[in-house]
Amino acid sequence: MASKDVSPGLWLIGIGPGDLGHITERAKSIARGCSKRYLEGYTAVLPSDQEERLEEVLGTWERLMRPSVESPERLLDEAREEAVALLIVGDPMQATTHIDLEARCMEEGVGFEVVPGMSATALAVSLSGLQSYKFGRQVTLPYPYGEYLATSPLEMIESNRSNGLHTLVLLDLDPTGMGFDLPTPMRPDQAVSILDRMAERAHEEGGASKGDPVEVRKWDGILLSDVGTGNQRVSSGSLDDVSNIEGGYVHTLIIPSNMSDNEKDAFRRRNLS
Amino acid sequence: MASKDVSPGLWLIGIGPGDLGHITERAKSIARGCSKRYLEGYTAVLPSDQEERLEEVLGTWERLMRPSVESPERLLDEAREEAVALLIVGDPMQATTHIDLEARCMEEGVGFEVVPGMSATALAVSLSGLQSYKFGRQVTLPYPYGEYLATSPLEMIESNRSNGLHTLVLLDLDPTGMGFDLPTPMRPDQAVSILDRMAERAHEEGGASKGDPVEVRKWDGILLSDVGTGNQRVSSGSLDDVSNIEGGYVHTLIIPSNMSDNEKDAFRRRNLS
Repeated sequence: MASKDVSPGLWLIGIGPGDLGHITERAKSIARGCSKRYLEGYTAVLPSDQEERLEEVLGTWERLMRPSVESPERLLDEAREEAVALLIVGDPMQATTHIDLEARCMEEGVGFEVVPGMSATALAVSLSGLQSYKFGRQVTLPYPYGEYLATSPLEMIESNRSNGLHTLVLLDLDPTGMGFDLPTPMRPDQAVSILDRMAERAHEEGGASKGDPVEVRKWDGILLSDVGTGNQRVSSGSLDDVSNIEGGYVHTLIIPSNMSDNEKDAFRRRNLS
Repeated sequence: MASKDVSPGLWLIGIGPGDLGHITERAKSIARGCSKRYLEGYTAVLPSDQEERLEEVLGTWERLMRPSVESPERLLDEAREEAVALLIVGDPMQATTHIDLEARCMEEGVGFEVVPGMSATALAVSLSGLQSYKFGRQVTLPYPYGEYLATSPLEMIESNRSNGLHTLVLLDLDPTGMGFDLPTPMRPDQAVSILDRMAERAHEEGGASKGDPVEVRKWDGILLSDVGTGNQRVSSGSLDDVSNIEGGYVHTLIIPSNMSDNEKDAFRRRNLS
């Protein structure tokens, strides 16, 4: 596809997770054909070696942080006149803001197109060796905000567990919640400690009559680190084991429940590796 | 990556859904570098125009049906000596048999590598405009087997609905359940009629005292047709509307529940289109 074939409008282009080798042919040719390229820089992140290759693979680009995406006047003005690519690490439609952009473009009569990419979450599920149809609702584990600690993420995991369903737990990237800065991915020890504190908090709120707090550190866990990159690592064990895993940059956690024999085998294979 | 760089073993390679433009750079270069290529032909299907392009894009190939994948002796013997690609439409790790292949290779000391691809289910969720974190457990709707009609798929949808969660409903491709033949994707009218019959059956089994059967035809539905292909279509309405949609080849159904305002807007936009 030559440059002139890409029509004016906002092109939300998924470039896949972690490694530019995961970009699809279609995403590559459309991104190259756009007159401008922005990289959305706060819901996900590329490793620095891949970011350095981005210009060579797709052309010149500029980073866009949350304020410019959530108040997208400039972006829409440009997209009215020319083909503008908003490059998203992973798949474009996973984050709320990207769905809001669809609505804004429709309202203002600006062309809007999505070029899908492989999502990091789909890849994590795939690498876990667990069956995708046995996953319940996905959960995001936020950084605690000062003294405030909502226990709802733990409750959702427990609800999945009691229904025999696995949980994909996305770890927060932004301690400030503002999206101004480059991401600060949550470490495995932080994640397990936050789950621990949620269990204590839930126990306090439920009253001492309800027995002991849930021992989350004894739960099974699968940690997926730097999915899609050359440093990709999959490790399984108890959440206590998981909390001791060092290294890696971006992590995703899976909490399995009621594994089949095949799934248990896959879990053990990932344990040894 | 040159041919000689791909080491012997079984390479499970996801080629993405529907259109060969969704293949990643990495999948393409590894598939080309393998000495043999098989296309797994029973869990998913490429449109015929794309299948015709497959040789030009990846090299010569042969189709493999279920018996040769589930009793993979020949495949493993070849993979012991040379780099063998098993091409999977979508993502390789979504289907049980593919996870079984991982175990077989480990047991027999045959190299095993997965090259992920964009999955049709992830793409369907992305195109729906619904938030991915609000999906509950995914459900497969099988063809009825003679007189036998399990009501568990409907029960899972109802359980998601009562928890305010959306359901991705995969429609069966194989009326025989044997995987010998090329897929026969379930049509939207068949899917809605099967859900209808499940509601009646569940009502009969629950006893007449429990009021009327669930009126599934009044539920909201989003139909995703030929996702990833040039004929891709997303339509929303009641399940009764959905059952009247004609045309298309492979369909996926989403049953939303408790949509947010943004999701309702996306639903309406897909209704008009």
